[in-house]
Formats: sequence, structure tokens, C-alpha cells
Amino acid sequence: MAEEKKMVEQITDMEVDFAQWYTDVCVRAGLIAYSSVKGCMIIKPLGYAIWENIQAELDRRFKATGVENVYMPMFIPESLLQREKDHVEGFAPEVAWVTRGGLEDLQEKLCVRPTSETLFCDFYKDEIQSHRDLPKVYNQWCSVVRWEKTTRPFLRSREFLWQEGHTAHATEEEAEERTILMLNTYASFLEEFLAIPVIKGQKTDKEKFAGAKATYTVEALMHDGKALQSGTSHNFGDGFARAFGIQYSDKDNKLQYVHQTSWGVTTRMIGAMIMVHGDNRGLVIPPAAAPTQVIIVPIQQRKEGVLAKAQELAAALSGFRVKVDDSDKSPGWKFNECEMRGVPLRVEIGPRDIEAGTCVLVRRDTGEKKTVELSALVQTVGEELAAMQREMLERARKHLAAHTYEATDYETFKKTIEEKPGFVKAMWCGDQACEDRIKADVAATSRCMPFEQEHIADTCVCCGKPAKKLVYWGRAY
Amino acid sequence: MAEEKKMVEQITDMEVDFAQWYTDVCVRAGLIAYSSVKGCMIIKPLGYAIWENIQAELDRRFKATGVENVYMPMFIPESLLQREKDHVEGFAPEVAWVTRGGLEDLQEKLCVRPTSETLFCDFYKDEIQSHRDLPKVYNQWCSVVRWEKTTRPFLRSREFLWQEGHTAHATEEEAEERTILMLNTYASFLEEFLAIPVIKGQKTDKEKFAGAKATYTVEALMHDGKALQSGTSHNFGDGFARAFGIQYSDKDNKLQYVHQTSWGVTTRMIGAMIMVHGDNRGLVIPPAAAPTQVIIVPIQQRKEGVLAKAQELAAALSGFRVKVDDSDKSPGWKFNECEMRGVPLRVEIGPRDIEAGTCVLVRRDTGEKKTVELSALVQTVGEELAAMQREMLERARKHLAAHTYEATDYETFKKTIEEKPGFVKAMWCGDQACEDRIKADVAATSRCMPFEQEHIADTCVCCGKPAKKLVYWGRAY
Repeated sequence: MAEEKKMVEQITDMEVDFAQWYTDVCVRAGLIAYSSVKGCMIIKPLGYAIWENIQAELDRRFKATGVENVYMPMFIPESLLQREKDHVEGFAPEVAWVTRGGLEDLQEKLCVRPTSETLFCDFYKDEIQSHRDLPKVYNQWCSVVRWEKTTRPFLRSREFLWQEGHTAHATEEEAEERTILMLNTYASFLEEFLAIPVIKGQKTDKEKFAGAKATYTVEALMHDGKALQSGTSHNFGDGFARAFGIQYSDKDNKLQYVHQTSWGVTTRMIGAMIMVHGDNRGLVIPPAAAPTQVIIVPIQQRKEGVLAKAQELAAALSGFRVKVDDSDKSPGWKFNECEMRGVPLRVEIGPRDIEAGTCVLVRRDTGEKKTVELSALVQTVGEELAAMQREMLERARKHLAAHTYEATDYETFKKTIEEKPGFVKAMWCGDQACEDRIKADVAATSRCMPFEQEHIADTCVCCGKPAKKLVYWGRAY
Repeated sequence: MAEEKKMVEQITDMEVDFAQWYTDVCVRAGLIAYSSVKGCMIIKPLGYAIWENIQAELDRRFKATGVENVYMPMFIPESLLQREKDHVEGFAPEVAWVTRGGLEDLQEKLCVRPTSETLFCDFYKDEIQSHRDLPKVYNQWCSVVRWEKTTRPFLRSREFLWQEGHTAHATEEEAEERTILMLNTYASFLEEFLAIPVIKGQKTDKEKFAGAKATYTVEALMHDGKALQSGTSHNFGDGFARAFGIQYSDKDNKLQYVHQTSWGVTTRMIGAMIMVHGDNRGLVIPPAAAPTQVIIVPIQQRKEGVLAKAQELAAALSGFRVKVDDSDKSPGWKFNECEMRGVPLRVEIGPRDIEAGTCVLVRRDTGEKKTVELSALVQTVGEELAAMQREMLERARKHLAAHTYEATDYETFKKTIEEKPGFVKAMWCGDQACEDRIKADVAATSRCMPFEQEHIADTCVCCGKPAKKLVYWGRAY
């Protein structure tokens, strides 16, 4: 009992201090550990197993659209990083520089990749000669480095894991098509696999990627009402192609510049999963992404036949990712631990259950307990996992809807941002001055100009000039 | 025809210049491209797809032995790297140093990991308190950096991809068991999956890993008779544990030091695959590792029904990794290309074949052609792929046996090394002076003291003193 109390006390109540709750969950659930490298975290087995599931499913969806994986060097020579003006301005201030190799100073310093547009461009300029070499639809899974000042597990760290897709196309239309295709791939993955609903839209010029013509984003809403940019897809037009001289000869043997895109998601999605689904008992992992979907906890496991029965159930459930916790900890401890670690379903089986030919099934998200006939267990587990996946998305959708507000005048807008954590939909004139003023007044940013535009007023919520676009505003991670 | 000629001329004859042949295959088969980052290569789709297959199969075999994956930071603070004396001496001369982050100089410089023993030790020192926390059997897939002066694709590059396992155990015996288990995992993987036979043995003190108590290795023999160290597994004893203070309280509450191991294989295995199986037409990929196992080449594909038939066959062969090459290149070009890229089986189907209800099946390794009834194609393809996998290993075994020699006197030893590329088995006194002399005289090194020891003479082949061990000697990559 003492043990159980201890374990529960170890996470802060999310209503009291959401930031502390988040850190507690990351550490106590065993997702990460802090390393002695400032700003870099260690991803522990549970955290990494979730990432492996995310990777496998995303990679499958990518390949279904014709993506091929490659691997580029982790270093970028300074001169290469500087080739595209806007790009270097965006990234140079936050890169790590290698200045010594072996026992010598380097003639040209190398930065550790913060992103690899420049490397892919340098590669494509030699790989692409003719229209027959197009399109190139390449992706890489790797780690990147951005020298952030303040860091938080999964959300912002100096090194993080991600995938970065980089494509080259013959036409502007084809590039735009790929940009949107990948944004939609991210959106459906987030909803179907991680049970996280998102708003799809375009970033304003102020918020777009350094060097992009257009940046599209999927924006999710965390439990605390803060927004999290969860994936972006960029259309570069022929900007990088002109900077790097990437040309192909078309069917009429005319030289043309290629049109490029890039798109990426990171381990940040794990942070989103924690902050959308977690509760005061810890992590709640959607069944699709859960390394262990069902944990079987034997009660009075030293009693004859109990462990054997638990193993027998595990064998019957082998179609799912199932584990038996036969450690010498107390059942209470095991319950707390698998709740803390977000295991979707718990099966309790003890002598009395065995006698009755039943077991107890507990759902992590609702805490709902039910007694199940052993003969019906396999089917019930399948149904409960499917229901949990579906209902987690429904709950997140309700939360998103309940925390999305509208404002048509600036006072209401500011009051809503200050008092009602969530998204605020408001009209915008298209002028960056208004974005700057809103940021200065209430520390909110334009999250995106949603694809689903509405006309809720004629004038900009900030300056009163004629409105051009509906924008989702919010405070963000 | 011109095209075909061109393509074949593009690789150097391996008997004329093996090193040039190797580089030609790496580039022409589309495995790699050179990058503008000196000493770093770009792994292109074919090369990376082979690595993905290797990774998936090895990861499966690791997890079957209880391995869990994690991810550690890519940077190591200088003070951490220096904690273990032998280790830092081994690696400090060949690391890349990050000295600036963002716009500031770092107070302590960070090296990009050349290997992660020090990071895992720093992590384990906090993670491991009690015997209940043991064993820890962690692995990570990542890239590492070693500032090599001369580099070659896959064999030696400044950045390369690998897996590094790092384990901590309660007892010396358990650590030794894990060290050997992983070496055996590498050996069976290399033989069963990559069709590469290996010699298993222990490295001499001169050749062992910096900081290890014992290093075990799997040594393969390339087509040119040079050896390639293809995987290593290290037993650290409690050396790192003492340097980092990694202790646990045992069942009697006594503080004990853990015993550690580490083990790794790299993209170098792709280099081994190329140099063991490749020929003058290019790459030959063992079916188990081949991204595409069967390629279907339609003949006169514009003729009605040909492409449809090719697609129909592809559908029937969907149990294998199959592709139809319906590009507008000539059949001859396609034949050369899929041979260059090492596709195990080629199916040729044209109007005449369709009429006859047959197709032509060509094996990449033997070049053997056979006409196959369409109704028997699926079964025949399965049989041919299995036969090819088996026979590639048999051929490699024969080559290894035919290029393994013995010497009992120094003159014969030197003559054999000079004139007969391969392994030379000879007795050794255990004194490093003899290793140094042999290296100076004939540029050969001790590859390993094989587990299967023989007694072929009483005295050291070099100095004539009493012999302690049989050693495999050879020139190596």
C-alpha cells in the first residue's frame, strides 16, 4: 500500500501544474531520462518503442505514396548552408558547429544538420539531369540538432528524432500536390493512429519555414488549451533550385528548374500524445500505438495454477501485443505501474476468477472494470481496444470543439485568449503588423489559415481594416 | 545496344583492379553517391533499402534475446569521454569536436559520439540501484562519427550507420554469456541472411577494443582474399563500472559493481556483401536481403497484352518482393540494369512466350536461363530463390576454405601472405612483439584466435618460442 501511495504521489495533479505534470509523466512513466548533455534527453525503452510504432506506421503510409528512404550526411559545410539566403538566416543562429576533426582544426567549419534541404539540393543538382530523373521522392529518418535555449522532453530539445522528406518535381502543380498529400498523410495518421484531431491550414508568411514559398501545418490542441504544431509540409517553388542550380532538360530539351517540397514530423508527436490523452494517473496510450496493448496481472500468483492460467490467457491473446507481469511486486504496485505507463487494457486473474471461469478487464482511459467470461476474452479484448481507440479520438474532438472560440472585436479577442485557453477563430487583414501586435498584447500567434475558411466578420479583429482570411489564433508550445 | 555497351563498360574488371571494381559497383549500382562533405557518403535508395532489410532482421533476432531499444544523445562532453583511461586514448584522436552552439562558444566542448559506452555508463549509474534493476540489455540504432583520414564507401567513412548494444549484468558469467550470445547472433545472421561464412574468435590484446577485457570478432574473407572484420562483441568486465561508479545492492544488500558488454555491426556488412558475392556484371544480392527479389521485364511491351500479362504475373508473385520494369528503356538496357543492381531473379515475358504459355527465368548469380511454364512460375520462383540463397553461401564457404592456408615456419608464412591472398593459420607465442614484426614484414595482422583451436605446431611461427594459440593471420580492410 505504501508503495502504491508513493507511486501515485509521484505525479503532480495536472490541474495544479500542467507543466510539472507533463515532466512527471515523461520521467515516471519511463519515457525519458535526463542526460548530462544539457538540452538532450535519453529516450528509454517505453518512449522508444512508441517511436518505433509511429515510425513503422508512418513509413508504411509514406511508401504507399511512392516515397523512397535514403541517408544523407549529418554535417553541412558552412558554405553549403549559406547558399539559400532566407534559409541560412532562419537556421544559422541555432546550429551547433564542428570546428575540429581528429587532432586538426577544420579548414571549413561544419554544422550538425538542423534540417537537410541544402544537402538534398546539393545531391539533386548532380542526380537530376533529364525529365526522366523526375520526380525524386526521398525521405530520411534521422536526428537533427537545433541549439535551443529552453528545452522540454519531446517538445523542444537540442537533438531530436524526426523524418524529413525532400522531393523534386518537374512542375509547380506536381510539387503543390505532393505538399498537400503529405500534410493529409500526417493529419490522417495523427487522427487514426494517435487519436489526435488536427486543424489543417497554411502558415502566414511570418510563421512559414525559412526559404519556403508556402508552409502548411497540422495544429493540435493539448489538454491545457495550448496549441502544438504537430507536422509541417513546405512548398519551395523553384527557390532552392535556382539557388543550387538544379535543372533538368524537358521533353523538348529545354532546361527547366525543378520544383521542390519538404515535410517532417518529429518525436514531438509523442509529446502531443501525452498532453492530449494523459491523466492524473499517468500516460494513456492509444491502442494502435501501444507497445503493450494488454497486460495480464496474476492475483496471488504463488497460488497453484494462477501463473499457468495467466500464461494460457497470454497465449490465447497472442494476436495482440500482450505481456504477463509475473514480477514479485504487489498487485497494487503492478496496477499503478501499468496505469502510469499507459497500457490500454489490464486483465486481472486470480484463484476466485479461475474458479468462476472469468477474469476482470480494466480499461486505462475510462477506468471501467468488467467481469468477462474467459471463453469470451479474446473477442472482448479486440472489441475494447477498438472502442478505446475510437472513443479516445471522439473525446479529443469534443475537447477541441469545446475549446475553440470566435471573436469579432479586439476586446473580446484579448479577453478570450487571456481567460479561455484554446483556439480563437478571428478574421485577419493579412498584415504582419497585426500578428506582431497580438503577440505583444496577449502572447498569442497565428496558428494557421485553415483550409476550411469561414467568413465570421468583414474586418480584421485587430486593426479593423478589411479582412482577408480567417485565422486560428492561440498560445502555443 | 550502345546504351548496353556503355553500361557494361562502366565497371572495371574485378581481376584487373578490385578496388576500382568495388567503387564502380557502389556508384553504378546506385548504392551510394559522394557528398560534398569530405569522407561522408550519401546512401541512395537501393543501398538504404538493403540496410532496412538488414536492420529489420537483426532487430527481430535481437529482441528475441530480450534486447530493448533506446536512444542516447549524439554528443559526449569531453569530461565524460575521458572518464575511462584506455577508452579515451583509443578514441580521442579520431573524434569530431563541437565547440560552438548557436552564437556562443561552448564552455565544455562536445564530441560527436564515436561509440556510446560513456553515455550508457553515465545513464546506468543512475538507472541501476538494486539487483532488481538488472540485467539491462539495451541497444540503439544510430550514426556515429570517426574522423578517418582515408575513406571508402561502407568500409570506412567519417560517418556511418550501426547498432550498438550496451548491457549491464550482476555477474561476470552472465556478461560473458551475453557477449558470446551476440557474437553468435552476428555469425548466424551473416551466414543465413547475407550468405557470408565467418570465422568466430577472440582478438589479441593488441587488436581488442579500447577499454575491453575481451573482444570477440566475426571475420569474413572477401573475393580478393582480404579479411574484413564484420562484427565485434566486447566483455568489459567491471572496468567501466569502476570508472563510472555503477553499483547495485545485491540480495544481501551488499554493493557490487555491474559487469558490462557492448556489441555492434555497421553498414560495413553491405561492403562485405558486395565483395563476397559481386561479379563483373555488378552487384549480386542474396534473396533474403534483396529489396527486389524478382524483376519482370516485358519484351515488346507495346504489343497488346504484354504489359497486362507482366502485371498479372507480378500479382501472382506478390508473395515475393516483385517489380515490373515497364519503363521505356530497351530490354537490353533493363537486363544490364537489373544485373548491375543485383536483383536475384529476372522474368522475361514477350508475345512469343505468352503464346507458348511460358516465360524465361534468369538467375543473377549463375546467369542460368530456363523456360518455365507460367502455371509453375510461382513454385519455381520460390525454389530458385531458396536455391540461390543456399548456393551463394556454399560458394562463399568453398572460397573461404580454398583461401585458408597453414604455415609452420616463418619463410613459408611470409611467402604465403605475399603470394596467396587469404587467411594463414599459424601458431603464436602470445607475444605482441611477433604481431608487430609480422605487420612490419608483410603488412598482415592477427585477425583472431579462433574458437575452434587446432595444434598445427609446437612453436610460434614468428619467433620459435613455445606456441600458445592458433591464430588466423591476414591482410585486412
